[in-house]
Amino acid sequence: MHELKNYTALIEMEIGKIDLPTTPANLYDPLRYFMGLGGKRMRPILTLLGAKLFDKDPLSAVNASLAVEVFHNFTLIHDDIMDEAPLRRNQETVHKKWNLSIAILSGDVLFVKAYQLLAMQDRKHLHDLLELFNRTAIEVCEGQQLDMDFESRADVTIPEYLEMIRLKTSVLLGCALELGAIIADADLSDRKNIYQFGENLGIAFQIQDDILDLYADPDKFGKQVGGDVIANKKTLLKLKAQELANPVQLETLKQLEYETDSERKVQKTRELYTSIGAREACEITMKHHYNIAMAALNAIKTGDTNKFPLVQLADQLMARES
Amino acid sequence: MHELKNYTALIEMEIGKIDLPTTPANLYDPLRYFMGLGGKRMRPILTLLGAKLFDKDPLSAVNASLAVEVFHNFTLIHDDIMDEAPLRRNQETVHKKWNLSIAILSGDVLFVKAYQLLAMQDRKHLHDLLELFNRTAIEVCEGQQLDMDFESRADVTIPEYLEMIRLKTSVLLGCALELGAIIADADLSDRKNIYQFGENLGIAFQIQDDILDLYADPDKFGKQVGGDVIANKKTLLKLKAQELANPVQLETLKQLEYETDSERKVQKTRELYTSIGAREACEITMKHHYNIAMAALNAIKTGDTNKFPLVQLADQLMARES
Repeated sequence: MHELKNYTALIEMEIGKIDLPTTPANLYDPLRYFMGLGGKRMRPILTLLGAKLFDKDPLSAVNASLAVEVFHNFTLIHDDIMDEAPLRRNQETVHKKWNLSIAILSGDVLFVKAYQLLAMQDRKHLHDLLELFNRTAIEVCEGQQLDMDFESRADVTIPEYLEMIRLKTSVLLGCALELGAIIADADLSDRKNIYQFGENLGIAFQIQDDILDLYADPDKFGKQVGGDVIANKKTLLKLKAQELANPVQLETLKQLEYETDSERKVQKTRELYTSIGAREACEITMKHHYNIAMAALNAIKTGDTNKFPLVQLADQLMARES
Repeated sequence: MHELKNYTALIEMEIGKIDLPTTPANLYDPLRYFMGLGGKRMRPILTLLGAKLFDKDPLSAVNASLAVEVFHNFTLIHDDIMDEAPLRRNQETVHKKWNLSIAILSGDVLFVKAYQLLAMQDRKHLHDLLELFNRTAIEVCEGQQLDMDFESRADVTIPEYLEMIRLKTSVLLGCALELGAIIADADLSDRKNIYQFGENLGIAFQIQDDILDLYADPDKFGKQVGGDVIANKKTLLKLKAQELANPVQLETLKQLEYETDSERKVQKTRELYTSIGAREACEITMKHHYNIAMAALNAIKTGDTNKFPLVQLADQLMARES
């Protein structure tokens, strides 16, 4: 993992170098603030690893990697408005710290910055980079819209939910890796496989998020355990529980939605989900996507040594406790 | 002007062909609605004329021209939120007809559509097109931010105001034309001149907007005459009036801001602006930018026949009464 830490440090340093003017201050101060909030920087690292997988110097993909991270942050600024979120990484969101208009507009400008960074890559790759990036950006917006649509729908199916998380979060991981592969001149079949690896790892990652939210060790989990349950949020756990529950269990699940004692609500729901077998069902789905990811990685025509950092990263993500 | 009408029809038809999926309906219905509201389609026509000026078939620049129009519509959707505007072209704005989140997100997706259209141009032009488009997009956002900042500032200077309108509206006209010139493989000096033509024509156009708002013939003007005055909006007319007024006139101007009888307010302000010489001063500034535009057009290394449609368009814009 030493290598990954070096990449995080590299990305952090390169983010600091992104050209953000000082005026208009109301446009650029929020961007300096938000980009400085940190995070795992997982997506840009994937772009660097995507290039390295195909024997290309990761440094040659730095601008594309920053484009992905900048795009991700743009989506967070706008999502925080739509979700009316007051906090992001325990700090005030842009629309709270400044205002709605500034959050919309500084988000917009950050989006352009992503394209500016992408345009700094070698001209010969530009068309392919842009095509993948555009398609992904549209899918991420579609995923966010579906997520919002689902809030007011009682009949969301499991395939619909999986498609929503694929669009909202997973395609960007596939895209991040494939951008690196494009820069490394990987062939189309390898590009497709590395994308599939990222996409399915992303789905597995998101399912694990759903599981951790309820089953994490409170001492190791960074936020409140059971947050999704308290908010009656649709997650794969909930949908699986509803699918597998018998009529009596289903009735109890419905009643628990109205439980006002948060601690009791979380504890009872957790017990019920476990006895229904929802946790296990989620783990099976997660493992299914993890396996697709690994099969896609296996199919790539490079040596195992090249693949090792990605295998390591995947295992690390799956073993996480927060 | 027959030619321009044909181009408008062409653009209108091509806009209808832009690939907008049916689902998620909450994402794409607003875009079909908004793109269908019409408008002069001046910007995309400029891109076609920019290509034609350098003897290139305008049809070869259609995708870039649509990118400009789509980008312009994206900025309108987001600006309407920031300005809390209920109406656009006498129809409900997206955030009014749907909601805030949908207006933000469908705007975002429309922005990506602009890049998708741009990426459909020939690969050999892509880098230059993208660089110009990105720089312009950022400037347009900066202009919008300055415009919002100016609302709460009492000390806005005339150069600051001109810089704001340059960024907010004029650079996109220069960009639209230069995109066409890039596609026509014009050299750098011609590209610079056609951009300057568009940029300065845009500034002149915007100043004329300020003048028309107060001095238009009500029978020919599409909206309420004096709207800017009633809203106490900072315009070049107002800034020039404040600059040229004597102490007594300045005091009257201040008092008129609080006048509650709209008709009286507009009439008195108009009379005062005229006697102060503000209208004349604006016309001088407008003419100054018109002249820069025409000088830049003159310097371009193509024949007068090629330039004729642009001269015609400029004269038409300057002679308009609404």
